[in-house]
Amino acid sequence: MPAKKSKLKVFSLGGHGEVGKNMTVLEYGDDIIVIDCGVAFPQDEMLGIDLVIPDFTYLQENQAKIRGMFLTHAHEDHIGSVPYFLREIKTRLFGTKLTLGLVGNKLREHGLLNQTEMTPVLQGDTVTAGCFKIEFIRVNHSIADAVAFSITTPVGVVIISGDFKVDFTPIQGETIDLARFGELGKKGVKLFLCESTNVLNKGYTLSERTVGDMFQRVFEESPTQRLIVAMFSSHIDRIQQVLNSAVQHRRKVLFMGRSMVNAVKTAMELGYLTAPTGLVIEVSEIKNYTHNQLVIITTGSQGEPMAALSRMAFSDHRQISISQSDKVVISASPIPGNEKLVSRVINDLMKQGAEVIYEGLMEVHVSGHAKQEELKIMHALIQPEYFMPIHGEFRHLTHHKDLAISMGMKKENIFVAGIGEVLEISTKEAKMNGTVPSGQLLVDGLGIGDVGNVVLRDRKHLSEDGLIIAAAGITMNDGYMQVTSGPDIISRGFVFVRESDELMDGSRAVVAETLYEMEQKNTTDRQYIRNRVREDLREYIWQTTKRNPMIFPILVEA
Amino acid sequence: MPAKKSKLKVFSLGGHGEVGKNMTVLEYGDDIIVIDCGVAFPQDEMLGIDLVIPDFTYLQENQAKIRGMFLTHAHEDHIGSVPYFLREIKTRLFGTKLTLGLVGNKLREHGLLNQTEMTPVLQGDTVTAGCFKIEFIRVNHSIADAVAFSITTPVGVVIISGDFKVDFTPIQGETIDLARFGELGKKGVKLFLCESTNVLNKGYTLSERTVGDMFQRVFEESPTQRLIVAMFSSHIDRIQQVLNSAVQHRRKVLFMGRSMVNAVKTAMELGYLTAPTGLVIEVSEIKNYTHNQLVIITTGSQGEPMAALSRMAFSDHRQISISQSDKVVISASPIPGNEKLVSRVINDLMKQGAEVIYEGLMEVHVSGHAKQEELKIMHALIQPEYFMPIHGEFRHLTHHKDLAISMGMKKENIFVAGIGEVLEISTKEAKMNGTVPSGQLLVDGLGIGDVGNVVLRDRKHLSEDGLIIAAAGITMNDGYMQVTSGPDIISRGFVFVRESDELMDGSRAVVAETLYEMEQKNTTDRQYIRNRVREDLREYIWQTTKRNPMIFPILVEA
Repeated sequence: MPAKKSKLKVFSLGGHGEVGKNMTVLEYGDDIIVIDCGVAFPQDEMLGIDLVIPDFTYLQENQAKIRGMFLTHAHEDHIGSVPYFLREIKTRLFGTKLTLGLVGNKLREHGLLNQTEMTPVLQGDTVTAGCFKIEFIRVNHSIADAVAFSITTPVGVVIISGDFKVDFTPIQGETIDLARFGELGKKGVKLFLCESTNVLNKGYTLSERTVGDMFQRVFEESPTQRLIVAMFSSHIDRIQQVLNSAVQHRRKVLFMGRSMVNAVKTAMELGYLTAPTGLVIEVSEIKNYTHNQLVIITTGSQGEPMAALSRMAFSDHRQISISQSDKVVISASPIPGNEKLVSRVINDLMKQGAEVIYEGLMEVHVSGHAKQEELKIMHALIQPEYFMPIHGEFRHLTHHKDLAISMGMKKENIFVAGIGEVLEISTKEAKMNGTVPSGQLLVDGLGIGDVGNVVLRDRKHLSEDGLIIAAAGITMNDGYMQVTSGPDIISRGFVFVRESDELMDGSRAVVAETLYEMEQKNTTDRQYIRNRVREDLREYIWQTTKRNPMIFPILVEA
Repeated sequence: MPAKKSKLKVFSLGGHGEVGKNMTVLEYGDDIIVIDCGVAFPQDEMLGIDLVIPDFTYLQENQAKIRGMFLTHAHEDHIGSVPYFLREIKTRLFGTKLTLGLVGNKLREHGLLNQTEMTPVLQGDTVTAGCFKIEFIRVNHSIADAVAFSITTPVGVVIISGDFKVDFTPIQGETIDLARFGELGKKGVKLFLCESTNVLNKGYTLSERTVGDMFQRVFEESPTQRLIVAMFSSHIDRIQQVLNSAVQHRRKVLFMGRSMVNAVKTAMELGYLTAPTGLVIEVSEIKNYTHNQLVIITTGSQGEPMAALSRMAFSDHRQISISQSDKVVISASPIPGNEKLVSRVINDLMKQGAEVIYEGLMEVHVSGHAKQEELKIMHALIQPEYFMPIHGEFRHLTHHKDLAISMGMKKENIFVAGIGEVLEISTKEAKMNGTVPSGQLLVDGLGIGDVGNVVLRDRKHLSEDGLIIAAAGITMNDGYMQVTSGPDIISRGFVFVRESDELMDGSRAVVAETLYEMEQKNTTDRQYIRNRVREDLREYIWQTTKRNPMIFPILVEA
């Protein structure tokens, strides 16, 4: 698709019709800007995969056009792929101070910090990048210093919401700049891209401050217990609220978990988190305090098996052991798919005697995303000519479309796009037109994209029924085959068997018989022999066990 | 633990500290009765496992004492293991008519129907089994003909709730027999075992009738669409409500999914489901009707990939294809762990243009389990001397204990037991005393219990990083080893590689070098050679890819 001078192209390489991995691109003529670069966590069927990142092919092919990457906030689903992007494509990063601070930690781990140009931008300021002017507009979210972007383009203004909620009593900073969105709306907004995470939820999301009130209650009701609070390490405002309660109740604070310690360090250095000297202690100091003089703030709110909280729950933590004098607060909602992991951690903490408080029992968590009434506020203020719902599964995008229609938008001005589908906007019209290469790349260890569907299918097969290796030594002389040793049978992940088990003896006999038949028939086609061994053994195993392990016939020639 | 004549032993082989797989045993002297025999669905880490059943060892060892198995209702988590039990242990089954009808379908599939003695019992009737008298008491639940048991034992009355709710406007039958529980409470109940599924939920569970009202609304609001309703096949009352609406709105009904068709057939034969002649049609007849003359009732409400609904969603169904003129109602709540599967089906149905209604959008599902206020009614009526919460994860049992304490029970009279932990009750006292063998057996294909932790660990390893086979032919002569062919490298589930890839070449070279070294050193210890090949290749692969596939060195002697 050749670039057309007169049209703005808008498309996402992640965040349309799925969760996680948000990334949107604006292109006009020779200028491209990239908004966010997130990562997704693997789906259940992506066995062995660590992370899922967007396919950057289109941006690699158009590197010369890229005028910068703009980040709305420092959550993984918006910044997690930045290091993978920068490994391939050099560009400048723009974001608010906290966002770049946390991105910086990530780049340092990947050895990319020194070679990356990062420009901090204040909420309210505007950056010019090629033909685009990008204004940073303050929003509320579950991480501080989050912004939306108003992007002035040659065809009009495009607003991209980032993640947001409307919090009239935020912990720090101010309420989302509703007035600015209203002002832009009055002047005329061409296109609004709005997040859709909570579009299925009626009403308003509660203020983050309500969580602080609940923490206060927990502190007051726990005069004798040690408090352990689990949350996302990026939830700086919530951490601040725990610190405030700790100061008031004369408790010391210990941070646990690598990502927590790193995030807190950065937020303190940049002034987003404040604590009086001496409040925060090291793990070696906990022995100097009684349980009711301590609060532990930890990672692991999603039940991640390797996180600090899980290791405490499973009695696998070197420094902290859980007892009846612990009260654990899980200040988070399980991300879909993590429900069982979280339940397990809760059960194991309770088995060790801890009291555990979690969502549903008390209001110890509020969402960071706008619910229906807040979304309506934004639509009412911005009144865009065109609307494209983003960030959500297909059902979220569809319901967001319905919401916009219910507020009077015309159906034909709303674009529910798939990943890589291009919306083309001129001053006169907007329409879906073509696609760019897109997809998801699977990260496994050091490899990116080298695990594809065939490998995943094999992993699934192996995970369900295991494998059997049937190995034999053969000679091929003068057009006939002869078995010189074996067959030997090895299995893994199949069933628990001893060498002498009937099933192994049976398998050996089946393979021996097949090989004998091949000898008799003077068959020398190795591929044919291997296939016959595989098929005969497969049939025997299926008849005996109704299972279907992967079978490897190994014929080694002497 | 020798049987003591004067004590009643109560323990569960499933249903304590977990969900699914409910099974409780009462033993007094030479008499044992078994209550329910459920199955659990495998946890995420149980790769390749089909079902999880209780460990029956104790009952096998005490077969001669078993006076019968009593079933509360026909849900999988209460009857699913019956065939596996009956394969090992012969005993009589007692249950209400519908329960035995649905169990019968299951036994027929396992070829056990003819050899099993089944005695239908009416709600309100009493059966004598050894020293026990078992009274069947009517309860409400999400399946018809469900009962609780009041069991008169030599040490007093034991009530076991089964699964229940309090429904004052049930679809068929009557309200739970609260008066009978009150009467028993007045006379004195020694022990109450009560289900805990919804103990975390405040208030009351709504009547099943509210779902019917919602179905009526859906029918009224969909004059032009085909309706597709997904639900559990055992939810006979809900099926009846859809049939009622269909009659009223002159639609024909088609049942899809094997378990749905079987359950409906049994329920109709036994009179639990009524439909006028001609209402139900076969799939071959749908071409005779327009979309708005049809309702399809289908399995797949949990997003099960092989169920009819999923196949429709993924355009993989031979007879039904989804379009914009379909409205799909998912009349169920995702069981924990199934959230993502259900989301995927919803998204895929919507992508094909269907309107999809599910929990959260409309009240198209209510629970079958008592919430806090209903549990309190039962505790207040029964006023047991001792209480044992059952059916739930550890956190549910603990919260149920707290609920009983809040109603005035003494902490020391409440027993939160683990699976296999024995509560001993005499006329004077109750205490936990010892354990019986217990646990979970994994069913994989035809095998029961032959997949253990080692096999699961191997499957997990294989699922994450795949495998590499390094095969070579060797000879061992006069105390020295010589390589005669290979090494050959085969990988599966590792990374996508071609034969000529660098990684495969590198692996071959590493193995060749190790074998050469072994030759030079005159090493003839096969185990040592295999270990060295494995370690050297593992190290190379890890350094190159940061992955850790399972490695199989295969040395075949000529």
